[in-house]
Amino acid sequence: MELTILGCNAATPRKNAQTTAQLLEIKGQLILIDCGEGTQIQLRKLGIKFARIQHIFISHLHGDHFYGLIGLISTFRLLGRTADLNVYGPKGIKEIISLQLKLAKSWTDYNLYFHELESTTSELILDHEKFTVETLPLLHRVYTNGYLFREKEGPRKINKAMIDQYGVDISDMENLKQGKDIRLDDGTLLANSLLTYPPDSPKSYAFCSDTAFKPDLSDLVAGVSCLYHEATFLDLHKELAQKTKHSTAAEAAQIAASAQVGHLILGHFSSRYPDLNDFIVQANKYFKNVSLAEDGKNFVF
Amino acid sequence: MELTILGCNAATPRKNAQTTAQLLEIKGQLILIDCGEGTQIQLRKLGIKFARIQHIFISHLHGDHFYGLIGLISTFRLLGRTADLNVYGPKGIKEIISLQLKLAKSWTDYNLYFHELESTTSELILDHEKFTVETLPLLHRVYTNGYLFREKEGPRKINKAMIDQYGVDISDMENLKQGKDIRLDDGTLLANSLLTYPPDSPKSYAFCSDTAFKPDLSDLVAGVSCLYHEATFLDLHKELAQKTKHSTAAEAAQIAASAQVGHLILGHFSSRYPDLNDFIVQANKYFKNVSLAEDGKNFVF
Repeated sequence: MELTILGCNAATPRKNAQTTAQLLEIKGQLILIDCGEGTQIQLRKLGIKFARIQHIFISHLHGDHFYGLIGLISTFRLLGRTADLNVYGPKGIKEIISLQLKLAKSWTDYNLYFHELESTTSELILDHEKFTVETLPLLHRVYTNGYLFREKEGPRKINKAMIDQYGVDISDMENLKQGKDIRLDDGTLLANSLLTYPPDSPKSYAFCSDTAFKPDLSDLVAGVSCLYHEATFLDLHKELAQKTKHSTAAEAAQIAASAQVGHLILGHFSSRYPDLNDFIVQANKYFKNVSLAEDGKNFVF
Repeated sequence: MELTILGCNAATPRKNAQTTAQLLEIKGQLILIDCGEGTQIQLRKLGIKFARIQHIFISHLHGDHFYGLIGLISTFRLLGRTADLNVYGPKGIKEIISLQLKLAKSWTDYNLYFHELESTTSELILDHEKFTVETLPLLHRVYTNGYLFREKEGPRKINKAMIDQYGVDISDMENLKQGKDIRLDDGTLLANSLLTYPPDSPKSYAFCSDTAFKPDLSDLVAGVSCLYHEATFLDLHKELAQKTKHSTAAEAAQIAASAQVGHLILGHFSSRYPDLNDFIVQANKYFKNVSLAEDGKNFVF
């Protein structure tokens, strides 16, 4: 999986800090997570072939997480898009986008499917050939979901040396990748495990923004390869975090520690902090493998 | 008047080309004209104290002219705005903004007034202490208005040398600026014209985007100091301009020539043209004083 941070500033964009949007690539599939104002511009600046995006997941209907969606949908039409586009988000998102298209007498030349969410418990919302997506109900001022992306297990990997040694025919490769044993022309049965390696263990990514500290979230994201958790505030503003239903860096790290994730990325920083280093320091009290999100930054896991 | 081009690209933002938005300053008043996606980011990049904006004029409800409005309105609240904000635009604009605020459970802490327009003839929509604004009905695929901004005539200017010569008291200055004659302590009546110069002649600015070629527009913008007229296409794509209800550079220049304006600015260029010089060349056949809009460019008139 490869994650690109398009923006990670809280509330409002700044000169060099966009609001929330992330691009996740899973086995060649491009997925957009949240879509703050200017996301399409950011995608262009980073040279991303964003026409390939087929799934968009919006966490909640605060502007810093979706004001860029209508622009992206409009631009897809202008670019001649024909591929389906699937948008997942809270109930209401279809009404907002439809009203804007209607008043502009505009439309899309591609199928635009809205999958509106209302459930307050985790559910499987997409079972794609290469990955699955589950919701992560969060605790915020409006209805909000995080999203958990899990790669599906890939094919077994061919052991080239053994293939050569036994003279296995090329026509057997697909069966071997599927885990089947094969029989040579002379009748010898070869066990699949002799000729292949196990597939890479599937990776997983959990996106959790925006949310108050929600300890039971750790059960849902237990063992994920990478967790993005919002950290709007530092300890100094813990009360403000509670009041506005956001988290501190320390709280995000406690979720990561309890869930034993591989890697924690913090983001959604309040603009009040000129230096973000304390986010690392305060998170490190609970969890070591912590990174800060930053516009344009890539994470491969 | 000082005009700053915030964006002038047609249809969709590009890496270094924002969609339509302009900032007009009239005697210290900041006015925003159209508000494409990312306008608030552009305002920050240009270091403009945009909290001072009190009037916003939206030409039409195509996304490249207003997708940035909801973000700006939200950011004003986050910045603690208390001053009134007046938004002028086509009917429907209030519904779009209100729906987004409602679904986000958001609000404004300042008075947000919508002035929805439906008239298809020119009307005076704002009579401010320092300027007036009239609509310029345009011809586009959806209901669209340009806007004509006229400075009001300022006070007469004091002729310092004559004031000193006659020993006019400082308490008479306000009356002199208002055009009144004054009487000295010895009973002498001094004509205002002896002690003052006429005020600067009021400037005017007409914003016309988006529109098909509309010859009768020249009557409405006759003699303006500066005309911004969209020029989406070059002659080569004249038929496409007719079909999409846009103008060519030559057509924009014909309006400028017929209206005998002081200066013509072309903008809203289609992304298909890598070199914009032909816009000048083709416009110059009809009108000489032509400039091309460019993100961040200033015009003082």
